[in-house]
Amino acid sequence: MKAVDTLLTNALVLTMDEEMRQFERGAVAVSGDSIIAVGDESEVRKGYTAKNEIDCGGKILMPGLINAHTHVPMTLMRGLADDLRLDVWLQGYMWPVEREFVSPDFVRLGTQLACAEMIRSGVTCFADMYFFEEAVAQATAEAGMRAVCAQTVLKFPSPDALSFEDSLAAAREYIQRWKGHELIVPSVAPHAPYTCTPEILRATAQLAVEFDVPLHTHIAETALEVENMRRENGMPVVPYVKKQGLFDAKVLAAHCVHIDEGEMRTLLHAGAGVAHNPSSNLKLASGFAPIVKMLEAGLNVGIGTDGPASNNDLDMFEEVRLAAFVAKAVSNDPTSVPAAQALTMATRLGARALHLGPVTGSLEPGKRADLILVDVSPLHNSPRFRRDPDNACAQLVYAGKAADVTDVMVNGKWLMHSRELLTLNEVELTTAAQEYARRMDIFLVEREQSVFSKLVALGGSAEEESFEVQVKVKLEKPDSVLAALKRSEIHILRKKHYHQHDVYFRFEDLSQGWMRYREDETVDEKDQITGVRARLTLIGPSREGDFAHDVLLSRIRYFAPATNSLRFYREYFKPGGETPIDKDRLRWLVRYKDEEFFINLDRVETPDLGYYPEIKSRTGSRRDAEEKAKGTTELILLLGGSLEDTVTLDYVEIAEGRLPGPPGQEPR
Amino acid sequence: MKAVDTLLTNALVLTMDEEMRQFERGAVAVSGDSIIAVGDESEVRKGYTAKNEIDCGGKILMPGLINAHTHVPMTLMRGLADDLRLDVWLQGYMWPVEREFVSPDFVRLGTQLACAEMIRSGVTCFADMYFFEEAVAQATAEAGMRAVCAQTVLKFPSPDALSFEDSLAAAREYIQRWKGHELIVPSVAPHAPYTCTPEILRATAQLAVEFDVPLHTHIAETALEVENMRRENGMPVVPYVKKQGLFDAKVLAAHCVHIDEGEMRTLLHAGAGVAHNPSSNLKLASGFAPIVKMLEAGLNVGIGTDGPASNNDLDMFEEVRLAAFVAKAVSNDPTSVPAAQALTMATRLGARALHLGPVTGSLEPGKRADLILVDVSPLHNSPRFRRDPDNACAQLVYAGKAADVTDVMVNGKWLMHSRELLTLNEVELTTAAQEYARRMDIFLVEREQSVFSKLVALGGSAEEESFEVQVKVKLEKPDSVLAALKRSEIHILRKKHYHQHDVYFRFEDLSQGWMRYREDETVDEKDQITGVRARLTLIGPSREGDFAHDVLLSRIRYFAPATNSLRFYREYFKPGGETPIDKDRLRWLVRYKDEEFFINLDRVETPDLGYYPEIKSRTGSRRDAEEKAKGTTELILLLGGSLEDTVTLDYVEIAEGRLPGPPGQEPR
Repeated sequence: MKAVDTLLTNALVLTMDEEMRQFERGAVAVSGDSIIAVGDESEVRKGYTAKNEIDCGGKILMPGLINAHTHVPMTLMRGLADDLRLDVWLQGYMWPVEREFVSPDFVRLGTQLACAEMIRSGVTCFADMYFFEEAVAQATAEAGMRAVCAQTVLKFPSPDALSFEDSLAAAREYIQRWKGHELIVPSVAPHAPYTCTPEILRATAQLAVEFDVPLHTHIAETALEVENMRRENGMPVVPYVKKQGLFDAKVLAAHCVHIDEGEMRTLLHAGAGVAHNPSSNLKLASGFAPIVKMLEAGLNVGIGTDGPASNNDLDMFEEVRLAAFVAKAVSNDPTSVPAAQALTMATRLGARALHLGPVTGSLEPGKRADLILVDVSPLHNSPRFRRDPDNACAQLVYAGKAADVTDVMVNGKWLMHSRELLTLNEVELTTAAQEYARRMDIFLVEREQSVFSKLVALGGSAEEESFEVQVKVKLEKPDSVLAALKRSEIHILRKKHYHQHDVYFRFEDLSQGWMRYREDETVDEKDQITGVRARLTLIGPSREGDFAHDVLLSRIRYFAPATNSLRFYREYFKPGGETPIDKDRLRWLVRYKDEEFFINLDRVETPDLGYYPEIKSRTGSRRDAEEKAKGTTELILLLGGSLEDTVTLDYVEIAEGRLPGPPGQEPR
Repeated sequence: MKAVDTLLTNALVLTMDEEMRQFERGAVAVSGDSIIAVGDESEVRKGYTAKNEIDCGGKILMPGLINAHTHVPMTLMRGLADDLRLDVWLQGYMWPVEREFVSPDFVRLGTQLACAEMIRSGVTCFADMYFFEEAVAQATAEAGMRAVCAQTVLKFPSPDALSFEDSLAAAREYIQRWKGHELIVPSVAPHAPYTCTPEILRATAQLAVEFDVPLHTHIAETALEVENMRRENGMPVVPYVKKQGLFDAKVLAAHCVHIDEGEMRTLLHAGAGVAHNPSSNLKLASGFAPIVKMLEAGLNVGIGTDGPASNNDLDMFEEVRLAAFVAKAVSNDPTSVPAAQALTMATRLGARALHLGPVTGSLEPGKRADLILVDVSPLHNSPRFRRDPDNACAQLVYAGKAADVTDVMVNGKWLMHSRELLTLNEVELTTAAQEYARRMDIFLVEREQSVFSKLVALGGSAEEESFEVQVKVKLEKPDSVLAALKRSEIHILRKKHYHQHDVYFRFEDLSQGWMRYREDETVDEKDQITGVRARLTLIGPSREGDFAHDVLLSRIRYFAPATNSLRFYREYFKPGGETPIDKDRLRWLVRYKDEEFFINLDRVETPDLGYYPEIKSRTGSRRDAEEKAKGTTELILLLGGSLEDTVTLDYVEIAEGRLPGPPGQEPR
């Protein structure tokens, strides 16, 4: 008889080992941080005695669940913004809020909140990827959970690093400090192939190899990512990262929604783990990951919640159920991913995906004691059938709830007992979280009040405010303009021809002005399109001033390259309406009386407004404007216009019929 | 100031009315069974006082959820069999168990269990369809819930009726008794177009019209149903039921997974409601219902759990979340079915789908007081954002859990208060349910021990045990057989030519015998296939006896038309292995010395075994067999065979190499 620390008895033991052994009245012996014995209670009792004997009252005793991919500090942004497209959600909400709020304190609190939620739902181990990851590791270790904590590295500045060199150096120091910890496996996370340079992929892989730690990354989450990768690099995502040497490291590849069978083989040969995230893939409409094929290929496919801002919780019971459900529907086969297989993904396969196979993921002597008790007697899970070993798995997967977990042990220590958390204070955590939420709400409310603030929140480079002097006149024919440009007093510096496609967003609050999304197609002498450029301009709502003869002083508050699609800006700015203006424009930069002016000869096609020559000149301040206004008036006359016919309205104003149109033109 | 019974104050009130009004600090006044006022707390206080004032402590106060399609007594079969194809699940497990166990007592207990679970998860109203529906109605009314309870009518015998006339008559009496009840709306349910005759569809519609009650049915749940309908009736499901006059009634159509836009318009014009069942559709791999299009078309699409044996719970929080999730993934658009819309489906639209729009589904003065309180402060739903009305909906839909519901009122009466059920005793219910489960387990364990019992459990007509005398011999050429059949002592009664495709299932327990799935293609003189027939035969495991010259007495234990596919039987019987045998067979029924014999001339193609003439004769008992054995021996000689070369093995034995093969034939 050997003495052990704890003997758990009278449990339905699901070992989740290779043989999927179950013990109807089973027992588990634990000493120190490890499992010593697992088996029929009568057998285990013959070999072991314990100071602590715990009668499990017929509950299910099984390995703790493994959340194979998450961003735990994002608990603090749970429900901040939902039902948005990925780009709008990330660039419009997550990133601006992260830039403003993410700090070691934020990360620590978010991690504690997440650990509390995960312990409550039977998770004993997770794989995380975020900023200030050392704070995640610290908070997780204090909470007593096991985790692979990966420091994110990106090609652009992040909340915790101004450059990738900084974050790589920080990752190295972090890994050095935490390597060998009993609960935390430090790791590095090149965020994704599309947010990292090849150099970052290589450097992070080398770092992971140097310290023999896992590398965590996002792979092929969306169809767009694969499409871009194919266009830019002529290959799908997995071969691309292989080319950068990523698979020299022990990789944990999150998502893998859009990979083919060749890529699966590459992952298999590389010994990479996969983290499947059903809720997130559904909620963000990323697609259906081919998990049936991945499992058939022999890959270690774990299940993850992804970050709680795109889920919106950390409930692995829900994830496991969804993994089974969705696989059936997508393969059109209800026998796909049966309950036992789904549960294996969330335990043994998940541990392997995290490169922690020898440590956790099943109840076997020698592994760490990471285990949970689940009460399957409540109302919503009654009655229970036991004629088949699959019945218990089905009960857990199809009717089990996170709240059915009553006790959680990690590394031989209890973290929850009879639903009471032993290492975290929920009231303190939720109170502190609410204070963060209040501040984030205020930040977003202020931002959402102004189109300008929303534009600034997108970040990126942009010009300051500027003023523009402009006048235009309606002409029946363009001939007089072309003739005037041959005059000696007008010196042509540059000429350009393009099609300009504008979409003006208008807002219920007219004082917000117009947001213009402009796409220029540059056209050569043979009328071939030679280039496309998109820009975003926030145009002041009303004229800043008028000069004689309808010369208008207008205000451009902000303009920037439009790196996102028109669709993105539409969903992000949520305009009250929009008006398209298409025109063909010949544009000359000219010098006239020592001042530079743009002369545009526009043929407005949508709506059909005809020919307009337009004189424009940009100026840094109102003071210069007076002098420029004089030049524009003179040029209008030279171009054949009459000062009586000048138009103060912008095309969009004519199109929207906000003000009377020019002579002969009905307001629309 | 008007006095009301109850004033609920200090709640975030989500009215779910047409304007989706929310009151950040709202109140609801209730008198009798109805809502009297809804609004800002300060406004409501100005108009009403109450004996009972309940401070909701900032919880969400909203209309109760509506489970738009379920079979509540099936709680008792939750987890009985999972991960099976629909036909195997239904015909192999659900139907046999229902035939054995379903009674008014079973239905009553299952309903009570379901009501307890639904009240706990915030459901106040549901639409049910089952057998002994009056017992469902009775138990539901006692539990205090609102429901549309539909008595099932089928074209074949059911647990509560031997014929459709019986169940129709019972439905009429039930509707007469319950019409006008304050909580229960009686209803009739022609189960589905493929389980009802046109006559049943017409009769049930007329019954529903006569009493002005809803009609509940399954429509287009699987692609197979639509395929069969098109083949048999040349049209999809909705036009077919329209043709039978179904839409004369107020229809609630469950599933509608495989309907097109024309069918949606038909449903809309008919004023039919739709019940969408995401969990069930995923779990049974039925497909993805086009709910985005249905909602765009203006249909009242509610959300249902379906029966808890195919879900496996009655958790509407999970269903609502899945409705939103799956719609996004399928439409490839994360903005599809946002949280507020999903919640509307589970409340106001659900009520309309049940034809209860004026009664329930939103918090509006005049509607019945069916409402719930939800605590959104727990850990898994922290923090909360409140800058946008959608935040509260997103919190409920994406992170809310059934267990967050604390209080439930139906028809002005509390059914749950501070998570305590007031009308049902959970311990009694789960104990009684467990006793049923124990008995069902025993029933199935006994059945599963024997292939014969599993076959009998499928039901349908089948023959009794019989014996067969048989002998065969290997020949190089068939010529001697064809010559012998011209002899005068052999009188040919009938001749047939067919290709016989057999698949033999073998079982680990060899005493179970072989299960043969046999498909015969009848062939005419031009070698054209003129008919196909499939049969199932359970063949006794070993010879019953031998006569002289290798004449074998074998036992056929059971044979029946194979109405299901080979795939079905494979998944139902779960054989340890299978062996195909294909042969071309010329078969003559002959009279020889006043006894009838079959003479088969087989050319065995899979595996390639060559020509075998075979003499067979069926007999009711062992006693007749001796005389027949003598005739077969004589016939073998007449056909040109040698009594030294007769073969006792069946083709499958030769193919599987269980015993040495015939001369010149290696065991395979």
